Amino acid sequence: MSQAQDGSIADNLRDFHDSTIVGAIMKHETENAGYEDRIRASFAKQGLMATLGAALIKVAPGLVEIAIHPAPAISQQHGFVHGGAVSAIADSAAGYAALSLMPPDRGVLTTEFKINLVAPAAGDRIIARGRVIKAGRTLTLAQTEVFAESGGQEKLIALLTATMMAVEGRDGVSD
Amino acid sequence: MSQAQDGSIADNLRDFHDSTIVGAIMKHETENAGYEDRIRASFAKQGLMATLGAALIKVAPGLVEIAIHPAPAISQQHGFVHGGAVSAIADSAAGYAALSLMPPDRGVLTTEFKINLVAPAAGDRIIARGRVIKAGRTLTLAQTEVFAESGGQEKLIALLTATMMAVEGRDGVSD
Amino acid sequence: MSQAQDGSIADNLRDFHDSTIVGAIMKHETENAGYEDRIRASFAKQGLMATLGAALIKVAPGLVEIAIHPAPAISQQHGFVHGGAVSAIADSAAGYAALSLMPPDRGVLTTEFKINLVAPAAGDRIIARGRVIKAGRTLTLAQTEVFAESGGQEKLIALLTATMMAVEGRDGVSD
Amino acid sequence: MSQAQDGSIADNLRDFHDSTIVGAIMKHETENAGYEDRIRASFAKQGLMATLGAALIKVAPGLVEIAIHPAPAISQQHGFVHGGAVSAIADSAAGYAALSLMPPDRGVLTTEFKINLVAPAAGDRIIARGRVIKAGRTLTLAQTEVFAESGGQEKLIALLTATMMAVEGRDGVSD
Repeated sequence: MSQAQDGSIADNLRDFHDSTIVGAIMKHETENAGYEDRIRASFAKQGLMATLGAALIKVAPGLVEIAIHPAPAISQQHGFVHGGAVSAIADSAAGYAALSLMPPDRGVLTTEFKINLVAPAAGDRIIARGRVIKAGRTLTLAQTEVFAESGGQEKLIALLTATMMAVEGRDGVSD
Repeated sequence: MSQAQDGSIADNLRDFHDSTIVGAIMKHETENAGYEDRIRASFAKQGLMATLGAALIKVAPGLVEIAIHPAPAISQQHGFVHGGAVSAIADSAAGYAALSLMPPDRGVLTTEFKINLVAPAAGDRIIARGRVIKAGRTLTLAQTEVFAESGGQEKLIALLTATMMAVEGRDGVSD
Repeated sequence: MSQAQDGSIADNLRDFHDSTIVGAIMKHETENAGYEDRIRASFAKQGLMATLGAALIKVAPGLVEIAIHPAPAISQQHGFVHGGAVSAIADSAAGYAALSLMPPDRGVLTTEFKINLVAPAAGDRIIARGRVIKAGRTLTLAQTEVFAESGGQEKLIALLTATMMAVEGRDGVSD
Repeated sequence: MSQAQDGSIADNLRDFHDSTIVGAIMKHETENAGYEDRIRASFAKQGLMATLGAALIKVAPGLVEIAIHPAPAISQQHGFVHGGAVSAIADSAAGYAALSLMPPDRGVLTTEFKINLVAPAAGDRIIARGRVIKAGRTLTLAQTEVFAESGGQEKLIALLTATMMAVEGRDGVSD
């Protein structure tokens, strides 16, 4: 993944680019003007985020970023950040990206996610960028890319895909 | 990568765009100049692709597209294209995207994939666009977006994430 | 999913029950006495199943089996059964296992599945055994084990986990 | 559970039993007599496990159990245990189940996992039971069932499927 690009490949990929899932997020409009306050308040209630030392870096409609700093307290046996900690911030980022598009009376729950861990989670900072791929009435598909930041460079270390379910006034779910 | 918190959504998304996984595919260089012939020959040997009426639409380094036309022969009970047929072309597209970057003496096998089916597979044509997210020595992570094309418009209907394993001269795997 | 177990079967399965999901299948009760007819009628409408030469082997509450025979028409490039064909019968088996527990006015749709392909799909017959793990109001979790049968011996070749969504009188979904 | 298809439930379950994935774990033999010490030592090095208050409950060839107690420090916003914490112990349980079958010179890394969260993680204790489904030369497929224990009763709350990769003397991976 270190090769330079050349013109022809870029040309080949141009129309690919136009129809990629990334384009979709530009269309997102939230149904809740107060989405950012809501997400920040909810995040503050996630005890695990505090325990992991996680910070909410960015909140936009359909897009949420959460970061942690590698430390022994969140490590696996080789000293890298544990896949469970990576999954936790990636899951929260995806969930809050979904929540950002919900009306005030609906919350979200993660029903399932899948994560590929493609490189060791190490570096100065681990950043999870969650975004909504498809927002549906009942289910929302979101994806989170997780990057390790080292010396100002970012490297993809994990990719999570999650299905969130909208819940309305049940199970005490309000945020 | 340095998003401003306070810009417009378009601004926020623009630099998000810069760091998306899609950017990565522009860097792919194949280790096999004859990758296209190899893939076309391999595709021709996949009996299931012929049975499904699938066509290889595009082959580029790290990027392969396969399409099918909705028909009763590949339907599920409501008349939409069966999720298994969607998965089949999405899996093949991801696998060939991975194969396009392999040296001639290495093949690939799908070890696992996950697919989210977000809308009914119906329309004029179903197009699966597979691309490599991360090419590793043993494992390659690829992702396929599947679109339904209707009246010139495309709509995302499925998203597949797959792990491909490189195999070298074993199990008769040569393509 | 709250019924207690009784006597001898519970005894037989006690060590299972302690650590496995298998215990759960003993508790399933269908809400539709005509579930088998319904499933057989729906299966007959899945054009892809006929195209793959698939047969419905077994239908019980929360448990459905579907089989195919390896053939060039459903192969990948090395002559094994294509992962997409394996996925198709595994997905249908999981979906019908879920449908077997639904009341007559509710159908199911696959929202996502994940499959691990652990050995080549080859042999005399490929059998997919789908069963319900957890039946919920909106979502049902099902799992399908796929075996290759050769000379009377079975070998696990794939494991699929799927999320099915109950749908009620919409999108023309009735089976 | 009432409906037997043809024959008793015991009959139905007997053949199911014969071919279930669970049967496989009874055959597991470890290639490392000191597997338990190795796993306990490795677990002790996973800083995240200590941070989550996780305990290694059981270690057997191909089967490992890890438990946590619900607490505000590992919660999500509604007070349930965060899906990330559930994933962390489920991932570790699967990984150590895989490691228990490895020779002393090989370690394992999680390459990907998928988890379905089917009920809120609440109760007296959360127990993750990981077991090996298929141990291969390069890849091992493992599955973890997660239960919530309340008043002596267990309820399935999550199901994780993971692919572990064997690594040999690289990246400082030794356990």
